[in-house]
Amino acid sequence: MKKESNLPPPTLERLARLYVLLGKLQQQGLGVVSSKRLSELLGVPDHTIRKDLSCLREGLGRGKPGDGGKPADTEWAKMDKPGASGGRGYPLDALRTLIGERLGLTRPRTACLVGLGNLGVAILHRKIWQEGVYRLVAAFDSSENRLELLSTKVPLYHARELEGVVRKQRIEIGILTVPPEAAQETADRLVRSGIRGIVNFAPVVLSVKSDQVVVRNVSLAGELNILSAYLYQQEEEHG
Amino acid sequence: MKKESNLPPPTLERLARLYVLLGKLQQQGLGVVSSKRLSELLGVPDHTIRKDLSCLREGLGRGKPGDGGKPADTEWAKMDKPGASGGRGYPLDALRTLIGERLGLTRPRTACLVGLGNLGVAILHRKIWQEGVYRLVAAFDSSENRLELLSTKVPLYHARELEGVVRKQRIEIGILTVPPEAAQETADRLVRSGIRGIVNFAPVVLSVKSDQVVVRNVSLAGELNILSAYLYQQEEEHG
Repeated sequence: MKKESNLPPPTLERLARLYVLLGKLQQQGLGVVSSKRLSELLGVPDHTIRKDLSCLREGLGRGKPGDGGKPADTEWAKMDKPGASGGRGYPLDALRTLIGERLGLTRPRTACLVGLGNLGVAILHRKIWQEGVYRLVAAFDSSENRLELLSTKVPLYHARELEGVVRKQRIEIGILTVPPEAAQETADRLVRSGIRGIVNFAPVVLSVKSDQVVVRNVSLAGELNILSAYLYQQEEEHG
Repeated sequence: MKKESNLPPPTLERLARLYVLLGKLQQQGLGVVSSKRLSELLGVPDHTIRKDLSCLREGLGRGKPGDGGKPADTEWAKMDKPGASGGRGYPLDALRTLIGERLGLTRPRTACLVGLGNLGVAILHRKIWQEGVYRLVAAFDSSENRLELLSTKVPLYHARELEGVVRKQRIEIGILTVPPEAAQETADRLVRSGIRGIVNFAPVVLSVKSDQVVVRNVSLAGELNILSAYLYQQEEEHG
């Protein structure tokens, strides 16, 4: 199999978000979409989106016509050209398939959830686990009582069983929804058990030693600050 | 007051996240921090961090020595120079103050929360509301029963009162934790009532007409896809 060159992290992250967005637009029955519209929905400049999509093509035969039935580079550019004939936008299905393949997003992944407080329970019931790509194969909590009361098809375990279950089932992704004071220790235990990626919802800075473990921090404070900084810029502009 | 030029969105967003990170490192008692360490914790290349920090200086007198007691540009660069004397890193307090002032993050903001399911309740109890900058002044739900059962100091209202309360209290930020099918309508109502920013936790694409309203989408699916894409790149590299 041909080795594909790595995408720069910001491109990879934007494309992974774009993939989610395209899925939702597909559900709404949309057939084509312009980089301008994607720009509005993602909050990313449209020239960045076009640049990202051209990165995407690079791993795929550089626009050789008829390459696996996918449009060539020049065709992509034409589709999105404002005002030109055929410039109505990218075909949504083909674009999503292309991103999914290039980023490996159709490969199924196993995940576990650690911490079954309010946030954990909210995530436990998210629809994403029924869509087939991500499989939530275990959820952990340190309260026997909570484990007994929860009604779910996901297998529940006491937190003390974490290492054993993660190792045995070769779980790849851990979602952290424990209280802040327990987050670092839980992350260490996940890393020791061979986890490959962590989505951290606890408001703490995780220190993960291994280069091989990818950490994503989801931060309410960060989002509020970004909003607040944009509002401040508006205020400065308009007096 | 001197008008400061707008920061490019990616810089603004990284700096706003950096501000949160610096606050947590302060709490851990750290005094100085290098761009290299910040790079590891943020998952952003260190040259990008140095570039962002130089953008920051541009609005502040371009390194005039003795400018409000803050280090000049050349001094900043020296602090973080690897191997040079005094190259141990940036002074954490000064750096955080600088970012906070430039981005307007110390200005108090009012917020409301819409939707008091598991996720909403988790957010209602976050410590950020006790820290003084963001004030959660209202929370809404469409279930009378849930409103009666919740114990909190935050004033609770039935969802039908949304427009009135947001207008009367001039609430700036709305946090959406409603079910996906209610998200768009709730966002429309917030926008009509004069909200200026929305943090959307519902897994839907919001379509917000006004240019003046900033929307931040927090997406579990997006984070899982980003992780998954990084894992795929590792797999491709190492066979």
